Amino acid sequence: MVTVYNTSKEIAEADPPIAILPVGSLEQHGEHLPVATDWLRADDLGQRLAEALGNCYLLPAIAYANSQEHMDMAGTITLRPSTLALVIEDIVLSLRHHGIRRIVIFTTHGGNWVLKPTIRDLNFRYPDLRIIHADGPLLTERESMPREMHAGKGETAAILAIRPELVKGRSPDHAAPFGREWLDYAGMGAVTETGTWGEPSKADPEGYADSMDAMVERRVAYIRETFARLDEMLGPIEED
Amino acid sequence: MVTVYNTSKEIAEADPPIAILPVGSLEQHGEHLPVATDWLRADDLGQRLAEALGNCYLLPAIAYANSQEHMDMAGTITLRPSTLALVIEDIVLSLRHHGIRRIVIFTTHGGNWVLKPTIRDLNFRYPDLRIIHADGPLLTERESMPREMHAGKGETAAILAIRPELVKGRSPDHAAPFGREWLDYAGMGAVTETGTWGEPSKADPEGYADSMDAMVERRVAYIRETFARLDEMLGPIEED
Amino acid sequence: MVTVYNTSKEIAEADPPIAILPVGSLEQHGEHLPVATDWLRADDLGQRLAEALGNCYLLPAIAYANSQEHMDMAGTITLRPSTLALVIEDIVLSLRHHGIRRIVIFTTHGGNWVLKPTIRDLNFRYPDLRIIHADGPLLTERESMPREMHAGKGETAAILAIRPELVKGRSPDHAAPFGREWLDYAGMGAVTETGTWGEPSKADPEGYADSMDAMVERRVAYIRETFARLDEMLGPIEED
Amino acid sequence: MVTVYNTSKEIAEADPPIAILPVGSLEQHGEHLPVATDWLRADDLGQRLAEALGNCYLLPAIAYANSQEHMDMAGTITLRPSTLALVIEDIVLSLRHHGIRRIVIFTTHGGNWVLKPTIRDLNFRYPDLRIIHADGPLLTERESMPREMHAGKGETAAILAIRPELVKGRSPDHAAPFGREWLDYAGMGAVTETGTWGEPSKADPEGYADSMDAMVERRVAYIRETFARLDEMLGPIEED
Amino acid sequence: MVTVYNTSKEIAEADPPIAILPVGSLEQHGEHLPVATDWLRADDLGQRLAEALGNCYLLPAIAYANSQEHMDMAGTITLRPSTLALVIEDIVLSLRHHGIRRIVIFTTHGGNWVLKPTIRDLNFRYPDLRIIHADGPLLTERESMPREMHAGKGETAAILAIRPELVKGRSPDHAAPFGREWLDYAGMGAVTETGTWGEPSKADPEGYADSMDAMVERRVAYIRETFARLDEMLGPIEED
Amino acid sequence: MVTVYNTSKEIAEADPPIAILPVGSLEQHGEHLPVATDWLRADDLGQRLAEALGNCYLLPAIAYANSQEHMDMAGTITLRPSTLALVIEDIVLSLRHHGIRRIVIFTTHGGNWVLKPTIRDLNFRYPDLRIIHADGPLLTERESMPREMHAGKGETAAILAIRPELVKGRSPDHAAPFGREWLDYAGMGAVTETGTWGEPSKADPEGYADSMDAMVERRVAYIRETFARLDEMLGPIEED
Repeated sequence: MVTVYNTSKEIAEADPPIAILPVGSLEQHGEHLPVATDWLRADDLGQRLAEALGNCYLLPAIAYANSQEHMDMAGTITLRPSTLALVIEDIVLSLRHHGIRRIVIFTTHGGNWVLKPTIRDLNFRYPDLRIIHADGPLLTERESMPREMHAGKGETAAILAIRPELVKGRSPDHAAPFGREWLDYAGMGAVTETGTWGEPSKADPEGYADSMDAMVERRVAYIRETFARLDEMLGPIEED
Repeated sequence: MVTVYNTSKEIAEADPPIAILPVGSLEQHGEHLPVATDWLRADDLGQRLAEALGNCYLLPAIAYANSQEHMDMAGTITLRPSTLALVIEDIVLSLRHHGIRRIVIFTTHGGNWVLKPTIRDLNFRYPDLRIIHADGPLLTERESMPREMHAGKGETAAILAIRPELVKGRSPDHAAPFGREWLDYAGMGAVTETGTWGEPSKADPEGYADSMDAMVERRVAYIRETFARLDEMLGPIEED
Repeated sequence: MVTVYNTSKEIAEADPPIAILPVGSLEQHGEHLPVATDWLRADDLGQRLAEALGNCYLLPAIAYANSQEHMDMAGTITLRPSTLALVIEDIVLSLRHHGIRRIVIFTTHGGNWVLKPTIRDLNFRYPDLRIIHADGPLLTERESMPREMHAGKGETAAILAIRPELVKGRSPDHAAPFGREWLDYAGMGAVTETGTWGEPSKADPEGYADSMDAMVERRVAYIRETFARLDEMLGPIEED
Repeated sequence: MVTVYNTSKEIAEADPPIAILPVGSLEQHGEHLPVATDWLRADDLGQRLAEALGNCYLLPAIAYANSQEHMDMAGTITLRPSTLALVIEDIVLSLRHHGIRRIVIFTTHGGNWVLKPTIRDLNFRYPDLRIIHADGPLLTERESMPREMHAGKGETAAILAIRPELVKGRSPDHAAPFGREWLDYAGMGAVTETGTWGEPSKADPEGYADSMDAMVERRVAYIRETFARLDEMLGPIEED
Repeated sequence: MVTVYNTSKEIAEADPPIAILPVGSLEQHGEHLPVATDWLRADDLGQRLAEALGNCYLLPAIAYANSQEHMDMAGTITLRPSTLALVIEDIVLSLRHHGIRRIVIFTTHGGNWVLKPTIRDLNFRYPDLRIIHADGPLLTERESMPREMHAGKGETAAILAIRPELVKGRSPDHAAPFGREWLDYAGMGAVTETGTWGEPSKADPEGYADSMDAMVERRVAYIRETFARLDEMLGPIEED
Repeated sequence: MVTVYNTSKEIAEADPPIAILPVGSLEQHGEHLPVATDWLRADDLGQRLAEALGNCYLLPAIAYANSQEHMDMAGTITLRPSTLALVIEDIVLSLRHHGIRRIVIFTTHGGNWVLKPTIRDLNFRYPDLRIIHADGPLLTERESMPREMHAGKGETAAILAIRPELVKGRSPDHAAPFGREWLDYAGMGAVTETGTWGEPSKADPEGYADSMDAMVERRVAYIRETFARLDEMLGPIEED
């Protein structure tokens, strides 16, 4: 394992095939924890992972990330999500320039939502890169894998109900033995045979209307409640 | 409820206080469902929601969204995530120009990851907007709310273990009666008193090292397995 | 002809060599027509064109386009022109990814000005693409072709008048049997021999000053009238 | 009239209420004219216009503009259209900073397509600016004004044919006494009363199908001919 | 002084009027120093400055910056300059959101060229911010201030030689008692009375041609030598 | 030498291996010089350089550049630095399209800071380009070359003081016989053997603390003085 505390020569000699990029944040953490909490945790976890992984290039945790939800409170610093995406891209392309094409990214701040589309976008645009998250279900843990992911019983029922003439038979039921994050790594064509992940054979178009009624009732309640509660919390909207 | 099938005058007269923006996608859906599946479902659900909500402006479902994971298969069309974020922003600003400041966004395509950071970013940059997702736990469903969200027992234990001198007592335990998505709507300052959501009082720094060992062991297994399996699936990396 | 109402497999089997991308808009259409007018017309025309063309991939009409000139009136939704250009680029690159390199774009909304530079830009940057508009004069309709396009009698007269020492003889007169839009498809080098399209031999430098006087008189009248009328319509300028 | 050949103090004292921004290009102009042709002509015309207009700030003609269609031939230099749009925006905002809010833009290079959407976008986003093109029909020349522009007989016939239930009576016929460019300056709400410009009363839905048949036949011929001719000119498509 | 190792509450209570943003880099540093050298030095200097300054918010040194010149050597990570500019802007706007409007930026990596235009751009666009570099001549050190900065003897001689009719007398000689960096902080209008910084009275148009001859001779030698040496070092240019 | 006053054919026949791109500005120049001063000087110098260089393509000086520091005074026009960077990139890529890969850029306006990172960025991203500044020390002028540039005695002393365990011996002292600008042209790997430019052997870690004390004392004085003087000049900060 090498880090930025090594010399360039040491890193060149180690010739690490993998890089680890921890992503932290600088955001308020209650009245008792430092603003640096996620950044410290990202470095700590990165260090532990790298030691266990063996030969890799452990990068320093990114301190400046995307924490707009904490900006009410002093000390929080946030990038816009689009800026964080560019930072990730530039770091990944630097690693690629040095011939490191396997990259592990993780974050200790759950609100860095933009990492997922960024990782998928980079894997798609640079097919010579293999960028993965650091966590997910193991391939042997089939019970943790989603059974219904795409074009399965729910979606088939929906189109049978909405536009039945568009449904052409049923793709075979398929249980892809992967976690959802594999779609970001390898794409649907690599993890399924027909593009279906789920059980079209069990589609129940009759039940669709009922399940939609229940969903709509619930969502309308949620929307009404949410706007009402936001008005209570934030007061009436002040226009510019 | 008004839609783009109404005239401008009808929309002006209805003066809808809320808009609904469904987001679909155009992506392969197995061998039996149309590429338009998510787009059709988004329009169907939007229609149902709008009818139930009453006076609102239902926009047509966005067809062109972010589906890079399905690009292996014919017919899929994808925007880059950054382009989709700009499309959402422009639509939201058009609604704001017309005085509609409450906006409900939902997607039938789970891979439109970029919606979450975009909604949060727009709520933060335009404080006169209230943009929400269409779904989440109701405020009365306390059992579905996350108990540990931020600065609670896990993070407190971590900093106690890593840099104990940085921990200043304990913020009071706090169970915020909200779903996580409220951070994207209102921010942490509005949904907690001290910025803590969880139970710092239960932090166990002694257990931290053990829990980290377990986590690292698992993640290393995951990383090794994932790269190995990707190589099997995709073959060796071909450099440019 | 295949559409997004087909399955991915059907599209793959049809292997369409051409795609059609209709571009609509969502903008007020008087007191009697729906906001969706251009979008509906784009889909209708797309359908008719695709049926007549034979094997092609007909995409759904883009609903969200560039209509800032209608934003005074309720219901209109506009993208910025730069966002629409990115949407077009991403869709075109998705088609290219699938091996479809002949793309026909048309719009039912005249104000989507940004399509022209975008199509030219993409044709220039991706020489393996052939992107065209859906309409223009047929090659047999020589009478509809512009006679003076570039470096012809008007421009030659101008430079003879302004900086005569820079004029090196006369390129041969040339009537390129193309509509102007061919410059966006193939470029000047492909549609002319010398880069001249017009009649340099007829350049009249003596007449230049007179024609400029007339033009200037007219333009000054136009500018004065326009600012005066805008002030009448919009009132005095209110500074921030 | 002041120019960049004046001192700052002279410009401040003149306090010009209007600026003129000529836009040229650097592109091949046949075998006999210089690459600078459009740039020279833009400066020449700008000079003439400014002298005739009186107190104004004449800027130097932009040399670097958007000429991708001439890039086959030596000497041509092009910006991407998106870069040219940013240049225009920055110059306009500099003038606004100095309190000059009436801006006349013109180009001697017809291919600078991006000027139109840029001018409209800036007029929309900065309501305290009045940016106009330098040319168009005078308001007294009613015969040059378009009679059918928006929501008139053609569009009404189309929706009556496609989705008749969406048509709500007829907006009054309206002949807006403006050129089309006024939509970029002032918007539809300012130049019409109902958003209609044309004659809905003359809509002929029965004729729609026939006119569409003719249009489709013609367009299909155009598309086929164009792709065939492009293949002849450019050879088969070479994929990357 | 507070840092990200403080809690949000401590930072709020300190209410620091100034923030310090150190900018490092991750780049090779010979065979004996770590890649982190500039980052370590930035944190060290930041700490020392903050302690001496008193109440301020010391941010962690930016690790990921702009080091393209070291990318030949392993371990170097670089952002593009445009990405670094966005990172700086987002951090500055976060501080502004918290009411901290005095910001000191410094870098230990000389190649972060983009900081200067970024600081000036932000000071210009946000007049309520005061962003400065951490170093420069003290105002009492008149001897270190540049005597000729703008519109002084050299530039006056040049225009007298090139276009003498454009020169309107002489602005009074002026020695602005500031370092050049003040132009980035306050602008020319604030640091001079007439916009002149130098000695127009000493302009020598006769000497202009001679001095230009010398300069041109030297520059041509430099250009020839540089291209020749680059070819020697890098070999012939390989086209794509 | 050819210019834009030549025809395309003349430029093609000259087949110039080098292009010269002068960059001026439009900014106030005291009460006696024109706003165009830097632009005129850039064209004048470009002309002289090109004549002396021989076969090259001299481009017209860029008029619109980055002069935010002069925006207090009438007539100044500025691009944002990021826009100027895009303009440079587009011009460079146009030259590259025509096969001209040796490009000399210079500016007569010292505030065009963004040129340096832009030139370096383009040289890095397009290895088939050789873009240089027009001036610097000649390779024979060793006395003008910086002795300490990177990883030399100062930086070595710093890391010996801060984190001595990270220092791995000493790279050999090295005096690279280049000016600093060579890092933007060729990169550190090409101009040094070990990445060191300076004298690590002379590092004095004991002196580090003293030199830092002096530096900090001075910088704190500078920061305090600068903010105080800015407040005097600009008045108290007015928040939005």
